[in-house]
Amino acid sequence: MQAKGRLIGVGTGPGDPELLTLKAVRALETADVVAHFAKRGNNGNARAIVGPHFRDTWIELPLFYPVTTEIDKDSNDYRSAITEFYEQSVNEVEKHLKAGRIVCVLSEGDPLFYGSYMHLHVRLSGRWPTEVIPGVTAMSGCWSQTGTPIVQGDDILTVLPGTLSEFELTRRMADTDAAVIMKVGRNLPKIRKALAAAGLLDRAVYVERGTMANTRSERLADKADNEAPYFSIVLVPGWLGRPGSVTASGVVL
Amino acid sequence: MQAKGRLIGVGTGPGDPELLTLKAVRALETADVVAHFAKRGNNGNARAIVGPHFRDTWIELPLFYPVTTEIDKDSNDYRSAITEFYEQSVNEVEKHLKAGRIVCVLSEGDPLFYGSYMHLHVRLSGRWPTEVIPGVTAMSGCWSQTGTPIVQGDDILTVLPGTLSEFELTRRMADTDAAVIMKVGRNLPKIRKALAAAGLLDRAVYVERGTMANTRSERLADKADNEAPYFSIVLVPGWLGRPGSVTASGVVL
Repeated sequence: MQAKGRLIGVGTGPGDPELLTLKAVRALETADVVAHFAKRGNNGNARAIVGPHFRDTWIELPLFYPVTTEIDKDSNDYRSAITEFYEQSVNEVEKHLKAGRIVCVLSEGDPLFYGSYMHLHVRLSGRWPTEVIPGVTAMSGCWSQTGTPIVQGDDILTVLPGTLSEFELTRRMADTDAAVIMKVGRNLPKIRKALAAAGLLDRAVYVERGTMANTRSERLADKADNEAPYFSIVLVPGWLGRPGSVTASGVVL
Repeated sequence: MQAKGRLIGVGTGPGDPELLTLKAVRALETADVVAHFAKRGNNGNARAIVGPHFRDTWIELPLFYPVTTEIDKDSNDYRSAITEFYEQSVNEVEKHLKAGRIVCVLSEGDPLFYGSYMHLHVRLSGRWPTEVIPGVTAMSGCWSQTGTPIVQGDDILTVLPGTLSEFELTRRMADTDAAVIMKVGRNLPKIRKALAAAGLLDRAVYVERGTMANTRSERLADKADNEAPYFSIVLVPGWLGRPGSVTASGVVL
């Protein structure tokens, strides 16, 4: 009798291989198939993070995003290309599930927090036994690495994509205690303007490749606009903004 | 010659001991002192989570919150009691640092995300070598356990304390793609009203003790208001609300 197929979404954490959870490591030990999303020509961070746990019994299943650099991301062409890609990926994964295999799908950070894994999850979890192993998010990696207490007590945290308009970024930054801005990249000059308009530029911290070997961080005010990787992050801690909070020098405000 | 003292903030993850990171486990192996915040009479979740890694060489340092149940949390009395407590805790930890010891301070979830550890961090990290090991947050544990994709693509996520007014909860819920509401407890009836007013009650998921052995979850609409632990969480996924997203049945909206 054949074992029943099982789908496991595995959060790999933000980059440092030591930030894998024990649960993720054990899942990888039982995996028959290890799948991961990647750009063609680049195996991707998630696969690199689990490198130390590689087993030669794994069937590796890289899922390469279609090349869509020429296509407007709001267009129907993009939408149908990416939807077709997810459907194909579902089919490839499901072939292994039907063969009774345990399929681990790697996801950088946390699978259900902006992860591509969720596109498989919503299509397959109704049909197959499914487990999601949460991971340390990129943003947690960034604020831990830079020692930036992000929220305390009754603070409100807003997570914003850097793709928002300058107006929306400014409005939302001015209406929260703390913020994390994701997908910085080419949006950096716009993000800087929005933070300055909200009076928060001095507090903002820029981090690229958080917890990875080649990470960099600095005060955003000190960083030039010329270059920022897509997955860099800006942190705006709520800590200093609250009455009753304590500053880095130990003063109760 | 004496070794130099070192402070490590250790995220223990949301509750399942398997969600500790490899890095946290290794830090606990090197620890001379293991400190954790707790209520008197209850050793707390963080200490329970690391139980399987206990070493009898550890000097254990529980830091018991002062009893403040009778005191208004916005009062100066509360503020001075809690500030004095953090100052005393700093002194206790620093005695061990001065003796050249490695002090691990346990923090449920992630240390710099609503964790008490940050009160030690801001006072001690300028004086001693300090490292923060991020952990899986309670909210990641909750959305993973319930298989709830929380945010995708360019979604905005808002993390709100349930202590906000009904007006503020409603306003902010109506102005975000996805939300996590923390500190539910006695605020549950108010949170329910705010979600209903924002038209989001049907989408909300209630989770208590996420990833722990005695966890429970259900649709918020099905849950009675009579009882909810303080640290229960309400999830409002952004997923279903976006054009171009895919529903659980695989339909592209």
